[in-house]
Amino acid sequence: MKALVYVGLKPGVLDPQGRTIARSLNDLGFGEVESALQGKVIELDLTGDDLTAAEARVVEMCEKLLANTVIENYRIEMRAE
Amino acid sequence: MKALVYVGLKPGVLDPQGRTIARSLNDLGFGEVESALQGKVIELDLTGDDLTAAEARVVEMCEKLLANTVIENYRIEMRAE
Repeated sequence: MKALVYVGLKPGVLDPQGRTIARSLNDLGFGEVESALQGKVIELDLTGDDLTAAEARVVEMCEKLLANTVIENYRIEMRAE
Repeated sequence: MKALVYVGLKPGVLDPQGRTIARSLNDLGFGEVESALQGKVIELDLTGDDLTAAEARVVEMCEKLLANTVIENYRIEMRAE
């Protein structure tokens, strides 16, 4: 079973990395880039086959380690494969 | 218009970050985690409304800046909103 965890900054939190990416792309001639946001995607391989129970555990993993919930949001996608 | 760029390490490339995540989760009591991979997701806000032309440009952006194509793969999702 797999879990995909998408972690990104909450709206309103300064994103210097995103700004740097946007500015660099503009400097490279990609003027159509108005803004950029950078986040993380973490792919977890999990044992077991109960998707619901596993998702609840992945929420715990996010709250404890994978996301800094003060400044970050996270979204979880579970995959049975 | 938005482009979502997913950048991850190519199979076989050492992923120390992913290993550290998996080991830390195991140490926190999440024994069901067998392995972890960490990648980036970059969300770009783009002007214009031609999705096909824009996607070709985003490929160029990946090849020039967003991905290190020696060790990384990338995947692009275009969104008209």
